[in-house]
Parts: sequence; C-alpha cells; structure tokens
Amino acid sequence: MIEEKKFFMREAFRVAIEGVVKGVGGPFGAVVVRNGEIISRGCNSVLSTNDPTAHAEVVAIREACKNLGSFQLNDCEIYTSCEPCPMCMGAIYWARPLRVYFAANRFDAAAAGFDDSFIYDELLLPGEERKIPLLPFLREESAALFKVWNDSPLKKQY
Amino acid sequence: MIEEKKFFMREAFRVAIEGVVKGVGGPFGAVVVRNGEIISRGCNSVLSTNDPTAHAEVVAIREACKNLGSFQLNDCEIYTSCEPCPMCMGAIYWARPLRVYFAANRFDAAAAGFDDSFIYDELLLPGEERKIPLLPFLREESAALFKVWNDSPLKKQY
Repeated sequence: MIEEKKFFMREAFRVAIEGVVKGVGGPFGAVVVRNGEIISRGCNSVLSTNDPTAHAEVVAIREACKNLGSFQLNDCEIYTSCEPCPMCMGAIYWARPLRVYFAANRFDAAAAGFDDSFIYDELLLPGEERKIPLLPFLREESAALFKVWNDSPLKKQY
Repeated sequence: MIEEKKFFMREAFRVAIEGVVKGVGGPFGAVVVRNGEIISRGCNSVLSTNDPTAHAEVVAIREACKNLGSFQLNDCEIYTSCEPCPMCMGAIYWARPLRVYFAANRFDAAAAGFDDSFIYDELLLPGEERKIPLLPFLREESAALFKVWNDSPLKKQY
C-alpha cells in the first residue's frame, strides 16, 4: 500500500520534471488515481498555453473529468508534487475526490519563488484592502439571476 | 464612468442568464474589460462541459488570456455576477487584473444553494481535519523538483 502510494507520488514528480525539461511550465505535477489506476496526469502548463489556470492539479482534474465523462471525481485520490494553491484547492473541492496527498508544502514553494502562500493570506483580508481589490457593485440587481436559475427547467444540482 | 461600470456588470448578468437558458451551467457570468473594451465573456459551463473548473471567472480569464496572447491580464478589470469562490480568486491572483467588481456575495450564493462559503471555511482548517483530507507525503523527495527548475535553461518567472 505504501509502495503503491510512493509509486503514484513519484509519477507526479516524473510528470513535473518532464514538464520543466520540455518547457511546458513550472516544476509541478499531479496524477488522479481511482482503484489503483491512474486516470489522468497533469503538469503545470501556464507558460506553454498562456493559461494562468493551467496548474498541474487543474490540468489533471480537467483531464480526469474528461476521461470519466463526469464533473465529479468520485472515489478518486489526487497525488500532487506540491501543496495546492487556493485555486487548485477550490478546484479540488468542486471535483470532490476522496483525499489529496501533497509533497512540497506552501513554504517550500514560496522559498523556491512560487508565492502561493501570499494568496492564502490575501483571501483573509477584506476585499477593499487586498492587492487586487474585490469591490461590491450592483448587488441589488443580482438576485434576479438566482431566480432565473430556480425557475429554470434545466436546473440541475452540481 | 458609473454608467460604464453598470453596463459591464449588466453584461455579466446577461451572459449568466443566457447560460442558464441555454443549459450551459449555473447562473454566473463574468466579463474581462480593458480600456473600456470587453476582452472576453464567460458563463458557468460546468454542466455542459463536465469541467468542474469551468466557473464564469475561469472561463472568462482563460478566454481573455487566449485573446491577448498572455497569461497576465495587465490593465484589465473583471466584472463578475457573484463573489468569486476560492478557485476563482486564485485564478484572479495568477492572472493579476487591476481589480474585480462583484454583485451577489458569497452568502447570497449560499442562500441560493451554491456553497462557496463552505470552501473558504475549509481552507482555514489543518489539512487532516478537512472534509477532503489534505495529507503530506514524500516531502523530502520533492526538493529535487525545484532544483531541476532552478537549473533549467527554460526557467521563466511567472
């Protein structure tokens, strides 16, 4: 069991290194596993795709959902070479795998020049005090959107 | 100026409603604006694409980056119909727009059945106490990845 876990995490490492060597992106890799089988692999692809959301976990989650034909990763585990940033943690919560294993932590990443830790700190500040201000606007008009959704015959819980 | 802001937020609302009516996804819309011009529009597309990361803001950010040929949204503003979830906030920090305007807040969303607020709470808990456990594993081996990156001729700050 521990050997299997090591195998999957080292596969995440391998994918990360391959991504750096091929110029795909930063040194991060992730794999999605279900019942002892790898469903998808992802490496950081921000630089090569001009997509700031293309972190290893997001890439692996998108690919796994495509492969499984579902927006939910039931019974899956994710192995990622580094502690997920808030974006990736959010993606993980929406995909709902069973659990996540990570190797490097957010402070290791910060020491290597990847400041995910900073975003965690920002999210605790009031919107108007953040480096990227988050400002309320036209709230009163937005209730109509939830009403359209609740009245829609196409509404589906997700 | 205020009229222009209203125009952009209402465009985010329009995109959200269009998405619901067409069965694309939940009632959320976003637009990316630069110098008074709409660079991209996005609506929640989780249901139609089986992609749990396809929130309105992520869709709009990815599209804007594609249109601008950059992974950075310099000088851009984002108008979103609802306060971004942690995933979308993370995506926003990586894309680095100037500021974000939102209409409905996280509590309005929770009242309508979209529990982004729950994820914000989870991120404050130690990994092993979360609903989706986040567990450290093989940290000592992961330092090699950052070394590969730092030694790589393809290394690029992002």
